Amino acid sequence: MKILTQLKKYSAELVDLHHTLALMQWDQEVRMPRRAAEGRAGQFATLSALVHRREVAPELGVLLVKAEAQKTSLSVEDRALLRVMRRSYDQNTKLPEEFVAEFSRLTSQAQMAWLEAREQSEFAIFQPLLERLVVMARQQAEYLGYAAHPYDALLDLYEEGLTTVQVEGMFAELQVPLVALVKRFSGRLPPLAFAEPFSQTGQEQFAEHLLVAMGFDFTRGCLTRSAHPFTTTLGHHDRRITNRYAPKSLDFIFGALHEGGHALYEQGIAEGLAHSHLDDGVSLGIHESQSRFWENVLGRSRPFWQRFFPELQQAFPAQFAHTGLEDFVRGINAVTPGLIRVDADELTYNLHVLIRFEIEKGLIEGSLEVAALPRVWREKYRQYLGVEVESDAVGVLQDIHWAHGSFGYFPTYTIGNLASAQIWEAYKKYDPGFCQTLADGNLAKVKEWLAREIHAHGSVYLPQELLVRVTGAPLSVGPFLAYLEEKFSALAG
Amino acid sequence: MKILTQLKKYSAELVDLHHTLALMQWDQEVRMPRRAAEGRAGQFATLSALVHRREVAPELGVLLVKAEAQKTSLSVEDRALLRVMRRSYDQNTKLPEEFVAEFSRLTSQAQMAWLEAREQSEFAIFQPLLERLVVMARQQAEYLGYAAHPYDALLDLYEEGLTTVQVEGMFAELQVPLVALVKRFSGRLPPLAFAEPFSQTGQEQFAEHLLVAMGFDFTRGCLTRSAHPFTTTLGHHDRRITNRYAPKSLDFIFGALHEGGHALYEQGIAEGLAHSHLDDGVSLGIHESQSRFWENVLGRSRPFWQRFFPELQQAFPAQFAHTGLEDFVRGINAVTPGLIRVDADELTYNLHVLIRFEIEKGLIEGSLEVAALPRVWREKYRQYLGVEVESDAVGVLQDIHWAHGSFGYFPTYTIGNLASAQIWEAYKKYDPGFCQTLADGNLAKVKEWLAREIHAHGSVYLPQELLVRVTGAPLSVGPFLAYLEEKFSALAG
Repeated sequence: MKILTQLKKYSAELVDLHHTLALMQWDQEVRMPRRAAEGRAGQFATLSALVHRREVAPELGVLLVKAEAQKTSLSVEDRALLRVMRRSYDQNTKLPEEFVAEFSRLTSQAQMAWLEAREQSEFAIFQPLLERLVVMARQQAEYLGYAAHPYDALLDLYEEGLTTVQVEGMFAELQVPLVALVKRFSGRLPPLAFAEPFSQTGQEQFAEHLLVAMGFDFTRGCLTRSAHPFTTTLGHHDRRITNRYAPKSLDFIFGALHEGGHALYEQGIAEGLAHSHLDDGVSLGIHESQSRFWENVLGRSRPFWQRFFPELQQAFPAQFAHTGLEDFVRGINAVTPGLIRVDADELTYNLHVLIRFEIEKGLIEGSLEVAALPRVWREKYRQYLGVEVESDAVGVLQDIHWAHGSFGYFPTYTIGNLASAQIWEAYKKYDPGFCQTLADGNLAKVKEWLAREIHAHGSVYLPQELLVRVTGAPLSVGPFLAYLEEKFSALAG
Repeated sequence: MKILTQLKKYSAELVDLHHTLALMQWDQEVRMPRRAAEGRAGQFATLSALVHRREVAPELGVLLVKAEAQKTSLSVEDRALLRVMRRSYDQNTKLPEEFVAEFSRLTSQAQMAWLEAREQSEFAIFQPLLERLVVMARQQAEYLGYAAHPYDALLDLYEEGLTTVQVEGMFAELQVPLVALVKRFSGRLPPLAFAEPFSQTGQEQFAEHLLVAMGFDFTRGCLTRSAHPFTTTLGHHDRRITNRYAPKSLDFIFGALHEGGHALYEQGIAEGLAHSHLDDGVSLGIHESQSRFWENVLGRSRPFWQRFFPELQQAFPAQFAHTGLEDFVRGINAVTPGLIRVDADELTYNLHVLIRFEIEKGLIEGSLEVAALPRVWREKYRQYLGVEVESDAVGVLQDIHWAHGSFGYFPTYTIGNLASAQIWEAYKKYDPGFCQTLADGNLAKVKEWLAREIHAHGSVYLPQELLVRVTGAPLSVGPFLAYLEEKFSALAG
């Protein structure tokens, strides 16, 4: 068999097994009975160990070396496959099998503990697990290796090549202008409030309606409910979204648009990349650029709601019969420093991320103890956002990421926000009539451009490379700040 | 490490992996988007092959031989574990890895084809897949080996030691008395008919209510919807039921009782057997005895409905306000030769099984062609049940079993029916006040007896051995025929 055929077969097998692991996680958050948690953790650890063994097999190392010797004769896609598999092989061979199994068992347990801790607003339930997670994450960084800071090793897992210094630089450029914008617009756009609850069924139906309008393909995915919305891939034709439904919140809309954006990226990957390591978004930052593009850039814009607000009014007359389009658009963009990251407006959101970045960095470098988190969380929220944290449930326990064992993930949210604005600039050049396009509800036009320019390529191009291809420039904070300035000035009149 | 500790660790790993495969199947029938079918088939094949490799590993063979050398010093449970693992190892080592992967891929595809064929009532959609399945099942029988008939090898997969000759003998004893009973009682008990549909939500709630009353533990299981109801185990604390909901049928009740019976068996297995090959019902026949016990022996009895009929009336006043208890109990026992096995009454049910047995035997021995199935199906239904098959959807395409690659499974339904009556005789000796027990809704008393006598033992005792322990006698047709005679004579007055 040709080397490359062998490599592709190997890739397909690993992808199959990772999709199986993803199914176990999806089920864990969507359907699994509570007492099954410990057993599932064991099952997950068993399969993870088996997969890990395949991922670090010397035969794969040999295949990679042989394929690399033929590199110059390969197509762009095959070279990319080799790049992604090499990166994954190098990362994996650095982690001992025992470590992988224990980490996976620990994160399964931690997720259940986190759920309970959050329900009871009791950090102490989660604390011992988080302490073990931090120890293991530091260990992970040591195994993976880094040049300057142990946190670099973790950042790199989610955004190839990203460093602590870069993230610090990004926030240094953002922090002052963001705080100024928050000051200018805080309280100037009246938020929406609902006396009547939205029915669960009505929310589900409207979320589904929006997803269909965006072009989400329900024959290749589904929408279910979970505590924390997420998107996951269980196969080339199986990209699933979860959403959540609170009685008096518009989460169901922005959750659907956000996860829908992630899912469109995944569903848009070219058929030719199916069943391989390239059949995936290239990085979390680029992934987040897609979710935020739909959630914020389009989904909180006036032209988008010119088309959809009448339908929303029809679906929920008790809530919207007496609200006008302008009030609605101002309401969904209200700037209110708050406690919850996923509820944050576009101006305060990246300050939430900054807090998490500083805490993670402290935990990993050892300058911060887990036991101090509730206190530190309160202090930073007071300092950066001017709000008082009422309870751990709406404080340090609000995010599932650490329970997943994900440290270094949060900064990719800010990268996504910056990239979404930069991509929007490029789209507007392609379609100068973008206002009318949205007002007509012609989301297919936007989706097709995104699919062609970004989605179809899967992991073929590096994140920075892709961004330059699409926008003509590397990532910068300028387009994002300009987008905010223009949008909020217009809204505030 | 002690040999037995090693063996138990090996058992736990395999059980974990099998539960993962079960999750993939559960999801496939409950939630998976349709276009994901082919990808899932590939994933299932990939993991199956990996599991198979672990199941046939020479190191496991060595472990078994070493453990068998210590056999006399082992506890009853450990000897049983050894027995079950040996049986499984011998079965698995006979099947080449390639064969297992291909069979698993084929059954995944066949299930989707079957769904479509059934929807369109078009046997031709399923036929090519069924042809390939029969070829592979015959191949499987050759690999497994048999003394007298290739079908013996397949029967043995589901009911250890069962032979074609035994099944023929069982049906020879049953057929004449059953046909006579059908003649006597056909049309004498007026069936129920509903003008108003049952709401889906109402059905789900009542099904859940019955399951709670039976003692099904929802912290260790869940209830969802699928095309064909089934029960599956995804972990010691994760036993799942599916049910189906038609607008004007009582399927939701008897489906819940039936699958609930299976699930109680699984949930009742002793904690000490968790995470091992013994954490499973011992055979399909014994499993079916538990489902039929709840569905028919209890669930179609007058005393059971003395307790639950008032609640049913309250839940569905439009359907039951003007129905009395006696009419209801006669209605749910109406004897009407029909087309659908799962809708069949207790008198005709085993004739449906007989037809499938004869067809399977023919397919496997090669005396019957797949292409002839729709015709043969029609002829046998005319001959044994006196009914005309209107379409393949309600004929040869009604069961999912063959699409699962399961040949030799159907006869275990009849074994279950016979065993349920035999177990009921034993229960009545234990609790002579059984009528009052049921009328009081004291299902806990029945469940606890079943759990103690049958469920707790998992796969520790052989099916026949277990039946003798519980009832004092090996399986026979006598108690079942006596049960039918007594029940239907009383109902017909």
